[in-house]
Amino acid sequence: MLNRVLGVITRASKRFILMSQEVPVPQAVKAPKKSKLQVSLKTPKGTKDWADTDMVIREAIFSTLSGLFKRHGAVTIDTPVFELRDILAGKYGEDSKLIYNLEDQGGELTSLRYDLTVPFARFVAMNNIQNIKRYHIAKVYRRDQPAMTKGRMREFYQCDFDIAGTYESMVPDAEVLAILVEGLTKLGIQDFKIKLNHRKILDGIFKISGVKDEDVRKISSAVDKLDKSPWEAVKKEITEEKGQTEETADKIGEYVKLNGSLKEVHELLSKDEAITSNELAKEGLDEIATLIKYAEAFAIEDFISFDLSLARGLDYYTGLIYEAVTEASAPPENATDLKKKSKNSEDASEYVGVGSIAAGGRYDNLVNMFAQASGKKSAQIPCIGISFGVERIFSLIKQRINASSNIKPTSTQVFVMAFGGGKDWNGYLPERMKVTKQLWDAGIETEYVYKAKANPRKQFEAAEKCGASVAVILGKEEYLENKLRVKRLGPEFADDDGELVDAADFVSVVKQKLSEVHEDGVNEVTRLIRGL
Amino acid sequence: MLNRVLGVITRASKRFILMSQEVPVPQAVKAPKKSKLQVSLKTPKGTKDWADTDMVIREAIFSTLSGLFKRHGAVTIDTPVFELRDILAGKYGEDSKLIYNLEDQGGELTSLRYDLTVPFARFVAMNNIQNIKRYHIAKVYRRDQPAMTKGRMREFYQCDFDIAGTYESMVPDAEVLAILVEGLTKLGIQDFKIKLNHRKILDGIFKISGVKDEDVRKISSAVDKLDKSPWEAVKKEITEEKGQTEETADKIGEYVKLNGSLKEVHELLSKDEAITSNELAKEGLDEIATLIKYAEAFAIEDFISFDLSLARGLDYYTGLIYEAVTEASAPPENATDLKKKSKNSEDASEYVGVGSIAAGGRYDNLVNMFAQASGKKSAQIPCIGISFGVERIFSLIKQRINASSNIKPTSTQVFVMAFGGGKDWNGYLPERMKVTKQLWDAGIETEYVYKAKANPRKQFEAAEKCGASVAVILGKEEYLENKLRVKRLGPEFADDDGELVDAADFVSVVKQKLSEVHEDGVNEVTRLIRGL
Repeated sequence: MLNRVLGVITRASKRFILMSQEVPVPQAVKAPKKSKLQVSLKTPKGTKDWADTDMVIREAIFSTLSGLFKRHGAVTIDTPVFELRDILAGKYGEDSKLIYNLEDQGGELTSLRYDLTVPFARFVAMNNIQNIKRYHIAKVYRRDQPAMTKGRMREFYQCDFDIAGTYESMVPDAEVLAILVEGLTKLGIQDFKIKLNHRKILDGIFKISGVKDEDVRKISSAVDKLDKSPWEAVKKEITEEKGQTEETADKIGEYVKLNGSLKEVHELLSKDEAITSNELAKEGLDEIATLIKYAEAFAIEDFISFDLSLARGLDYYTGLIYEAVTEASAPPENATDLKKKSKNSEDASEYVGVGSIAAGGRYDNLVNMFAQASGKKSAQIPCIGISFGVERIFSLIKQRINASSNIKPTSTQVFVMAFGGGKDWNGYLPERMKVTKQLWDAGIETEYVYKAKANPRKQFEAAEKCGASVAVILGKEEYLENKLRVKRLGPEFADDDGELVDAADFVSVVKQKLSEVHEDGVNEVTRLIRGL
Repeated sequence: MLNRVLGVITRASKRFILMSQEVPVPQAVKAPKKSKLQVSLKTPKGTKDWADTDMVIREAIFSTLSGLFKRHGAVTIDTPVFELRDILAGKYGEDSKLIYNLEDQGGELTSLRYDLTVPFARFVAMNNIQNIKRYHIAKVYRRDQPAMTKGRMREFYQCDFDIAGTYESMVPDAEVLAILVEGLTKLGIQDFKIKLNHRKILDGIFKISGVKDEDVRKISSAVDKLDKSPWEAVKKEITEEKGQTEETADKIGEYVKLNGSLKEVHELLSKDEAITSNELAKEGLDEIATLIKYAEAFAIEDFISFDLSLARGLDYYTGLIYEAVTEASAPPENATDLKKKSKNSEDASEYVGVGSIAAGGRYDNLVNMFAQASGKKSAQIPCIGISFGVERIFSLIKQRINASSNIKPTSTQVFVMAFGGGKDWNGYLPERMKVTKQLWDAGIETEYVYKAKANPRKQFEAAEKCGASVAVILGKEEYLENKLRVKRLGPEFADDDGELVDAADFVSVVKQKLSEVHEDGVNEVTRLIRGL
C-alpha cells in the first residue's frame, strides 16, 4: 500500500490528485510531500471570477447597452466561442500570435475567437445576408500580457454593434458614432472624446509622403503606436526598422500631428493640394464632409476629435476608424492640438490609464474575403461597427461608485418569518415554506430562514442582510386563525407592528406594500451607473 | 511569380488562403486548383450560430429562468470558460475523455469547462465561502457525438442553480425541486415528471446485494444505462464485464425495478428489513421521509416519481439525485411501475427523444475535495443543485410554437418617415435623423430608411417589416411649420391619417400611442413560451 501511494505521489508532480477518502494515506508519507499533492485553487492567468455586486454592476452595463442596441433596431446573434482555425487566419496582423488554439484531439483544428467582428463577417458571408444590424455581447480571448488593474484580461467581454449592408454613404457611420455617444453617456461617462480618422486619408498621406503601396500597412502599424510612444520613437521605427527615408518620415510626422474638430481638420486638409490631388485621400475627405452634416443632425459633433495620428492595428479596416478615450485613458500628448491645449510630453506618465474604452471602424472587404475564399461568388457587403470594452468601462464605473454604496447582490424583496411560540415550539418551518411558495408563485422575490427553529432576532437579521423591504410574519396563534402579519422593514418602521390580514389576501397586501417601496421606479444600480 | 503561387497553393492543402488582391493569380493556374483554395464557411462540428427568432426565444427562456432564480434569492457568478486542467481532472468518471483541452502554447495547461458545477465548487473552495445560493447561465463544452435534432451539441448552454451551505436537512433539497417544477411550468412544459433517487439508498442496495465497496461506483454506472438499455443488457454488463455474481445482479434487478410516488416507494422500502438494517440506506430513507413533508409544503409531490433505477453518471453525487423527463424524452420502459402503467419494452423506439431536460443532485464532498487538494484545511460545504438543459428545452418550445407565429427579432416600435415633396425633393434625410435621435434619447426603439430619397411605399414597407406600430411622418410642408404627424400603423389604421402635432410635443404623443399598443403588458414571446 505504501508503495502504491508513493508511486502515485511521484507520478503526481504535475497532476491533480484528489485524495480518495478510501485510501488511508500514512501521515509520515503525506506530510513531507504535501506541496506536491497540492493543486492551486485559482483561475487561469488573465482570467477571473465575477461575483457579488461586481456582477450586478456588469449586468446593468450589459442591459444598458443591449437596450441601446435594440433601440437602434438591432437583432442579436450568438456564435460559437471557437471557430475553425482557418476562419481566424490572416485577420489580425501581428496580433495573430495572441490567438488561443484548442488542442488537436482529432477532428477539426479550432481556435478561440479573438474578437466578435470576424465571426460576424463569417456569419454574414455563410448565410448570404445582404443587410443586418446586429449586436453581440460575449467573451473574446487573447493571450496577451494581462494587466488586471487596467482592465486588460485574457478573457474579456466585448459588446459589439455592427451594421452590414449597402446604404447611403456615411449614414450607418453616423449612426454608429451616435450609438457610441449614447452608450457612454447612458453609462455615466461624461468626459470622453472620440478620436476619429479615415483609413483612405491616412493611406493617402502615406502615399503622398513617399511610402510604397506594399509598405502602407506596416507604416500604419508604426503610426498606431503614437498613443503609447512619442513621435521620435515612431519615426525611428519608420526609418530604421521599416526602411523609409528621413524625408518621408518627416512628411508623415507633419500630418499625424494634426487634430481638432471635424470641421477644422477638414477645412485644413481641403486647402492642402497634395491631399486633394490624391484620389484616395480626396474620397476620404468627401466622406468626412458628408459625415459632418449627419453628425450635426445627431448633435454629436462636439464629442469628435479628428485625429490624424489614429491608425488602429487591425488589417481589415477600410474607411472611418475611431476610438473613445477618457481622461483616465488619454495617451501621452505628441500631437499639436489645433486648439493649443497641448501638454508637455514629460507628463506622459500621468496618462497611463485604461486605454480606449470603445473602438471600431468600417470594414468593407471582410465579408467578401470570406465569400471569395469559400468559393462563393463575390459578396461585397460593406460593414461598420463599434465594440465597447466593457471590462474597462466597468473599471471606470467601479471607481466612481462609492464602495459603501447601496448595491445589493440579491433581488430579495420579502422575508417570511415565524415567531411567538417560545423555545419548545416547532418553529413552523413547513408553514413558512408554504407561505413562501405562494409568494414565489406570485412572482415575488422571497426568502426565509432554512432552519426549523429560528429566533426572531436571527430572522430579522437575515431579512436585513438580504435587503428585504417587507416581512410576512406567521405568529403562532395568529396563523392558527388563518391570519398573517405584513410589515414594512427598515429603521423607520421599527415601531410599526404591520398589518394583520386574512391569509387569503396576504399576497395582494404584500404587492401593495412593495409598490410603495418602489414608487420612483428607477433601479438603484441603474441610477448609480448613470451617475445620477 | 507562377512558381510562388503554385508553392502557396500546394502548401495550402489544409490552410486557409485569403486571396490577396495585390497578387494577380493567373487564371489558368487558379481555375483547376480552385477547390484547394477553398475554406469551408461553417461553424465547428457540434456548434451552431443562433440568430433571428430562435435567439429571441432563447433569451426569453434565459430571462424566465434568471427571474426564477432571483426570486429564490440567488446571486449570479461568472467563471472563466476554461479552467486549469487539474481542476477538472477526476470529476467526470468515464466522460472525462469528452473534455476539450486548449493547446499548450506555453504557460498553464487548461481545458474548457465541462459543466458549471465543478467551477462552482472550485469558486466556493477558493473563496472560503460558507454559504451561497448562486445561479449561472453559460456555455459548457463536451466532445460528444452531436445529435442536433435532439438538441445534443458540443457547445451548449446550461442554466444552473445551486445552494451551498449547512442547513436544516432536506430544506435546500426541497427548494431545488420546487425550482425545477416552477421553472419547467413557467416555460410552458406541463407533461414532465421528476425521476428521483437517493445515492445512499442506491449504494445501500448495491451493498446488501453483495457488491464490494470498491465496485459500487462502476455498478452504479451500469445501472445508469437503464434509461437507454433493457435490464437484460445491464445485467449482462454487471455480471460479465463488471464481475458480479448472477445472484447479486438479480437482487439489484429486483430493487431497480421499483418506482412510484415518494410515499409509496418509501413505505415499501421501510418494510424491507435488508434496507432498514443497512445504515447507509436507512439514512437515505429517513431523509426521504423528511423530504415528503417539505414536498407537501411546496405542493410539488405529484411531480415526483421515486425511481430506484435512476443512478446519474457523475461521480460526485452523494445524496438526492433527480432528472426531469417529458413524454418526448421518456426512456424505454423497463421498470415495473407501481401504478401498473408499464408499457411493452418493444415500444422503446418511440421514446427516443431529447433525453432529460433538467437534472441535478446533492454533492456534499466536492468543495472539500478542492479544499483538501489545495492544502487548505477541510471545508465541508454541502451543496445541491439543478441544471436546466436549455438547448433541449428550446427544442421542445420550438416544436410547440407555431412557425408562423408572430415573434419578431427586433424591438422596433416607431418608424420615422418623410414624404410629400415629389421626385426632385431632397427627402429630408438629416431631418429624419434629427427626429429619430430625439426618440432614441427618449428611450424609444426607432428606425428610419437609410436613404436620402425613399418613396412613401418603400418607407411603409420597411416599417411593416420591422414591426413598428407607430409612424412619425415629416411632411414636406408640415415640417417647415414645425409640425410632425404621429400615426398608428397596421391594417386597421389604414384610413387613419394620424395626428398632426407640434414638433415640441411629438415625443409625448408617441409615448401615448405606444402605451395604447402595449395595454396588456404581457410580452408576446413570453406568452408564447408559457403556452398561453
